[in-house]
Amino acid sequence: MADLPYSPHLDRLIDLALEEDLGSGDVTTQALIPPELQGEAQIRAKQTLVVAGLMVAARVLARLDPALTFAPQVADGREVDAGQVLAVITGPVASILTGERTALNFLQRLSGIATFTRDMAAQLARATTVLVDTRKTAPGWRVLEKYAVRMGGGRNHRLGLYDGLLIKNNHIAAAGSITAAVRQAKARGHYLLKIEVEVADLPGLEEALAAGADLILLDNMDDATLKQAVDLTRGRAWLEASGSMTKERLPRVAATGVNAISMGALTHSAPAVDIHLRLVKTWR
Amino acid sequence: MADLPYSPHLDRLIDLALEEDLGSGDVTTQALIPPELQGEAQIRAKQTLVVAGLMVAARVLARLDPALTFAPQVADGREVDAGQVLAVITGPVASILTGERTALNFLQRLSGIATFTRDMAAQLARATTVLVDTRKTAPGWRVLEKYAVRMGGGRNHRLGLYDGLLIKNNHIAAAGSITAAVRQAKARGHYLLKIEVEVADLPGLEEALAAGADLILLDNMDDATLKQAVDLTRGRAWLEASGSMTKERLPRVAATGVNAISMGALTHSAPAVDIHLRLVKTWR
Amino acid sequence: MADLPYSPHLDRLIDLALEEDLGSGDVTTQALIPPELQGEAQIRAKQTLVVAGLMVAARVLARLDPALTFAPQVADGREVDAGQVLAVITGPVASILTGERTALNFLQRLSGIATFTRDMAAQLARATTVLVDTRKTAPGWRVLEKYAVRMGGGRNHRLGLYDGLLIKNNHIAAAGSITAAVRQAKARGHYLLKIEVEVADLPGLEEALAAGADLILLDNMDDATLKQAVDLTRGRAWLEASGSMTKERLPRVAATGVNAISMGALTHSAPAVDIHLRLVKTWR
Amino acid sequence: MADLPYSPHLDRLIDLALEEDLGSGDVTTQALIPPELQGEAQIRAKQTLVVAGLMVAARVLARLDPALTFAPQVADGREVDAGQVLAVITGPVASILTGERTALNFLQRLSGIATFTRDMAAQLARATTVLVDTRKTAPGWRVLEKYAVRMGGGRNHRLGLYDGLLIKNNHIAAAGSITAAVRQAKARGHYLLKIEVEVADLPGLEEALAAGADLILLDNMDDATLKQAVDLTRGRAWLEASGSMTKERLPRVAATGVNAISMGALTHSAPAVDIHLRLVKTWR
Amino acid sequence: MADLPYSPHLDRLIDLALEEDLGSGDVTTQALIPPELQGEAQIRAKQTLVVAGLMVAARVLARLDPALTFAPQVADGREVDAGQVLAVITGPVASILTGERTALNFLQRLSGIATFTRDMAAQLARATTVLVDTRKTAPGWRVLEKYAVRMGGGRNHRLGLYDGLLIKNNHIAAAGSITAAVRQAKARGHYLLKIEVEVADLPGLEEALAAGADLILLDNMDDATLKQAVDLTRGRAWLEASGSMTKERLPRVAATGVNAISMGALTHSAPAVDIHLRLVKTWR
Amino acid sequence: MADLPYSPHLDRLIDLALEEDLGSGDVTTQALIPPELQGEAQIRAKQTLVVAGLMVAARVLARLDPALTFAPQVADGREVDAGQVLAVITGPVASILTGERTALNFLQRLSGIATFTRDMAAQLARATTVLVDTRKTAPGWRVLEKYAVRMGGGRNHRLGLYDGLLIKNNHIAAAGSITAAVRQAKARGHYLLKIEVEVADLPGLEEALAAGADLILLDNMDDATLKQAVDLTRGRAWLEASGSMTKERLPRVAATGVNAISMGALTHSAPAVDIHLRLVKTWR
Repeated sequence: MADLPYSPHLDRLIDLALEEDLGSGDVTTQALIPPELQGEAQIRAKQTLVVAGLMVAARVLARLDPALTFAPQVADGREVDAGQVLAVITGPVASILTGERTALNFLQRLSGIATFTRDMAAQLARATTVLVDTRKTAPGWRVLEKYAVRMGGGRNHRLGLYDGLLIKNNHIAAAGSITAAVRQAKARGHYLLKIEVEVADLPGLEEALAAGADLILLDNMDDATLKQAVDLTRGRAWLEASGSMTKERLPRVAATGVNAISMGALTHSAPAVDIHLRLVKTWR
Repeated sequence: MADLPYSPHLDRLIDLALEEDLGSGDVTTQALIPPELQGEAQIRAKQTLVVAGLMVAARVLARLDPALTFAPQVADGREVDAGQVLAVITGPVASILTGERTALNFLQRLSGIATFTRDMAAQLARATTVLVDTRKTAPGWRVLEKYAVRMGGGRNHRLGLYDGLLIKNNHIAAAGSITAAVRQAKARGHYLLKIEVEVADLPGLEEALAAGADLILLDNMDDATLKQAVDLTRGRAWLEASGSMTKERLPRVAATGVNAISMGALTHSAPAVDIHLRLVKTWR
Repeated sequence: MADLPYSPHLDRLIDLALEEDLGSGDVTTQALIPPELQGEAQIRAKQTLVVAGLMVAARVLARLDPALTFAPQVADGREVDAGQVLAVITGPVASILTGERTALNFLQRLSGIATFTRDMAAQLARATTVLVDTRKTAPGWRVLEKYAVRMGGGRNHRLGLYDGLLIKNNHIAAAGSITAAVRQAKARGHYLLKIEVEVADLPGLEEALAAGADLILLDNMDDATLKQAVDLTRGRAWLEASGSMTKERLPRVAATGVNAISMGALTHSAPAVDIHLRLVKTWR
Repeated sequence: MADLPYSPHLDRLIDLALEEDLGSGDVTTQALIPPELQGEAQIRAKQTLVVAGLMVAARVLARLDPALTFAPQVADGREVDAGQVLAVITGPVASILTGERTALNFLQRLSGIATFTRDMAAQLARATTVLVDTRKTAPGWRVLEKYAVRMGGGRNHRLGLYDGLLIKNNHIAAAGSITAAVRQAKARGHYLLKIEVEVADLPGLEEALAAGADLILLDNMDDATLKQAVDLTRGRAWLEASGSMTKERLPRVAATGVNAISMGALTHSAPAVDIHLRLVKTWR
Repeated sequence: MADLPYSPHLDRLIDLALEEDLGSGDVTTQALIPPELQGEAQIRAKQTLVVAGLMVAARVLARLDPALTFAPQVADGREVDAGQVLAVITGPVASILTGERTALNFLQRLSGIATFTRDMAAQLARATTVLVDTRKTAPGWRVLEKYAVRMGGGRNHRLGLYDGLLIKNNHIAAAGSITAAVRQAKARGHYLLKIEVEVADLPGLEEALAAGADLILLDNMDDATLKQAVDLTRGRAWLEASGSMTKERLPRVAATGVNAISMGALTHSAPAVDIHLRLVKTWR
Repeated sequence: MADLPYSPHLDRLIDLALEEDLGSGDVTTQALIPPELQGEAQIRAKQTLVVAGLMVAARVLARLDPALTFAPQVADGREVDAGQVLAVITGPVASILTGERTALNFLQRLSGIATFTRDMAAQLARATTVLVDTRKTAPGWRVLEKYAVRMGGGRNHRLGLYDGLLIKNNHIAAAGSITAAVRQAKARGHYLLKIEVEVADLPGLEEALAAGADLILLDNMDDATLKQAVDLTRGRAWLEASGSMTKERLPRVAATGVNAISMGALTHSAPAVDIHLRLVKTWR
């Protein structure tokens, strides 16, 4: 069975998932499927979608029963049409049926995020602006959802609180001013990390630039203000627009010239896509 | 700090969530917020929503720092308007800011499910038909999402593979027929569990009724067929309609007289609702 | 090495078992057995017994040292005589000797339960009444002991508090009456689970039947009362007799016509059977 | 809630026990017991027994719900009559009922071992010979069962493979002879541990004494041979008799003058004792 | 008992430590110290040292027995003389004696690192050059040892592989050249992290500067070459000198004008300092 | 990949180590090393050293990526010169580079302890006195560091608090006297363990001998007093000298005739040795 790199965190999530679904056992399968019955099943797309998470599904099934084999038929990141076989599973039918829902639940959610991201990213196809995600992910799923965003053509903002200094309102309030906050971050922060400052208006932007911020998060500004922000910055910092983004607005925001647009909905509100499993043959 | 009942499973999910966000530490807060700074923060709704998960947010913060206090201002299951304060948090500002995102991520997702469920359930307000969920939940979140569905006015189908016998196509194929499958389930299955059979057409329904199924899942039938199924069944089994449900269709399906309608979207595609945290005062 | 289905719970128990016995190491074996010494050992019955748990013993040894091979010589559920070889183990002698006691401790206890259950079940050989277990199992061992009961010819009652509604005295007291309790369970309980009510006398039985209980636990009734209960019920519910069961009494209880007899002693008081391990040859 | 000393191992066993019984929740209690209902319950002996494990039951309930209080009414190691209240529990009725079975399962098994051990130890009341246990314990329960043996008046042999050098047949065979095995153990073994040798006959005993063993396990010898062994040893080593011990035989074995008698049945075959929980009042 | 911030990782290390030392129990204390004996103990420095880890020692004792209280007498980071009381512990004497060694082992090692770091950092007291650590820490101890370095006056380089891009020889070889590696890192790397390149000579430095590296690690250069590197760089990047550092050489390296000096010995070779625990009174 | 015996404790430490270094991923390697690139690397000594821990390094790499192979080139316990290849690793280059630091950190520390121990033990080469370690080990590392001491030619004192009775000052104070303490330990202690008593002067030694101690720890005595202690004891107990040991003093202490010398510095203050990893070829 194909395998993912070292990830005790992912294995802990998979165990939570299998334990919550299996509990003391799959009573239906135990009553009806003879343990010696072997079979082949296909995982198939039931709509157009961008695939993400095949190796996670593989790992779910491998943990459930090492006797199962999982052969991906496409690569993560590929857009496929309804009917496309995504993977073929072979082995004990009882294990296939017991693991089906958990494997599909991972795949449907991750492919849903990749599909939604691809749809949004397509709005920026002609721009140099990149689409980035946020930390608004389903707790426990951070690394997986960030991976799905990449498969959809998005780029990742920081993974957690440890790999980027992002100074927000509350931090600024505690430090006294943007200038003081950036100065403190430079003096006391982790010196391999860049410093990003969230600002709500142009004076804030100017202060952040003067203080030497590496990146600036432009929070909830309208398109005209974003344009002014870009003009005023003149490349001195990387600019990210954030807040109230919709599919329709994305090209207009990109046109302002910001370097990146961040969008929480990529992970917190992408609908699942429809994927199912079909047993195609059985033997003993 | 208010506490939830015994749940090592939930604590494992919360630990995954905190570990993935905190990693080796919140570098921004460490650089900018003095550890002795105390404060009060409000968690507030930014849209109309049905609250679910306040005690989970409380537990996240309690695990992060037992010095935080969390005072819920409304009860789970309540519908509130934008601006409503959901909870007040008091304690070290550094801990509030470090835990903010993880606590909100739980709350936004669970309240999103409750809100979406309430919206769907409202379509059945005048019917006796109940709205039920499925096992299409985010892996690791089963018990939480099922709870959110109840807060939204839905009812839970089985929690996992262990607390209900649900005979599906693949089981029937392996057993030879619906009749054989139900007989086997009665003979060898767990005798405290009811038996539900998934059928795709009316002959299947008749066979399942004759075999003595307690509940029948009517899969992907149109409204007219559902009506015929209800008439044909005459109360001999509990009937659930499933597949291709939309908000608009729900009243029509309920009008057929089925006992329940199951809808995977309640958990797999409910968009997150908007909730934020605001630091309202600080002191030393 | 032969393997069991997915069971992180069982692996956690096996780890507790190996850790508590091995601690910082098997000092005797380390001092006396050269690591390169290979050998073959037999696990043998020293009395007539019903085998249960060979795959658990296999898993213990596989976790201890993947270089060991374990070949079962009989199937779980088989009754064997003293002297029968149950399994053959091959591999490093040091690992065999270090794992011997833990593997045997599992096997002796589970086979003890199967043997005792078989002995009791034999009393019901000519009756249609089934012998069922209870939740009075050694904490941590629930799934294993329930499995051993099945190997001995018994049937399982619910696995835990989650897969069957069993209304007992205290629940009835809180609800006000049997009628009220059953009504509440139907309205608010999990609708895929049957409802069982514990009653202490015939009026209780009548009330439970009238309320629509699916199963009724007849607690501590004498044989004559049990007979009256069966007559009074006329097949309207599944009847289980419980309390003060002894081997001698079982046929008399079965003769009353109850559907099942539950017996806590199957798991909480079955004596271990005698099984030992013998090193039959060694080589380098 | 009263607490036991640091024991992550015990907490892991308690979690296994609670998780296997509670699973996704106590469906009966959730449907019937209002969460705000408070109550007081008594744990009572239903037969004469020696108590062991009250603090384990306390810990089970404390992990389940920290709002429960547990007041022991007698001390572990005390022999009590039927009817004696062992402990009083106060708090949410729902938590009491949900935790009841797991707490009692621990208590019934441990008190069963203590009671059986007391009964056996009473046979040696007038002798200086001590009664000791073995490593034939329920996997996962080693420390608890050894504790119960002490509560019953027995003494513990080694806790595991790490705190005593016990040279058995297979070790002797690998070393070539008793003499060689003892010499090797002295040269390479852990020098803070005494050396015990298992022998099957008097020549073996003589060789072990000559080699300088600190303790000798006399395996499966009849009373006459045991007597000869004692005479021959003249106090040069501590002698333990083992194998085929019954209650009736114990005084005769003690009369031979051996220092100790070991008996696996103390832990592997002690029947559970009868203890139950009664809700005595409730309030809101 | 004083508490540290959320750290499941630290608790896992503390549990490993307590489990490995306690095993099945502190046999000496159990035999000799009555459980009801209370006492007060002092933790004292036996040499001049910089304190680090008092809260870790506190946490060790709190996990062992919540009845212990731990009152620090100085703050971490303080330099103290022999005889200084670092903390006072009150509670059950048995728990104090059982936890003593584990608590001291943490404290001696962390204070050893802080003391050694202070000694090295003192060499740079008149320079602007900072002293930084490496990832050469005792596995399992990363966050603790990095903390001790800060307490000693050093500064932390990256915490792990995730919070800083450090391009080394092998990465450069795989990418083809320094230029290609930096370009790739900018295009595909995490954009909130700065880019550091390890170079072995001045041409490497020039290439790295031209490619736009944010920081440059000057590996194993002599003082003269370091000086040339500083001159050549003219502030365009942050320069770190690394390799073959000794206490004596530090001022000379600082005089070259590099921004930082990294030294693996701070964590991998600092000798433990001498700290002991003394029971100062007992009562019942 | 070569494997170590069963050790969930070691695997927990390795997981802590990999998790703390990898966090959310090796950003440099991910950006620069193509996943399909294969390679061969050598682990080499950069100074004269005694090897210890190769199988631990192997296990680190096997957990990180099962596709890596690890071929040791020398055996643990061997002294090698600078330049010696200790092991060859083959497999994905990305995995080699990601695991390099953690594997080396284990190896450098354990080989450091073995090297330092060998250096100290060489001082006793002509004596019968053995060099033993203490419990002053890095928390979490007990079994590994005790192993490294053996590889360096030292011998292990007790592994933890459970496998040896060592009566120290505080125990004696609580018991009232050495005599009382030894008597109590004999009566109530674990009877397979020997009894060691720590004494500070010759009267203490005489009392301990009279009480029947098996071993005596002579704490902080000068050479002349140690000599008197040996003369006074006349072989009645095993004598260990402890406290203020230096390399230079070891032969003088051995000359007094004590049986053992214990030295905490073997584990708490041995400097790491220099070992590095070099990628020697790559291919696709």
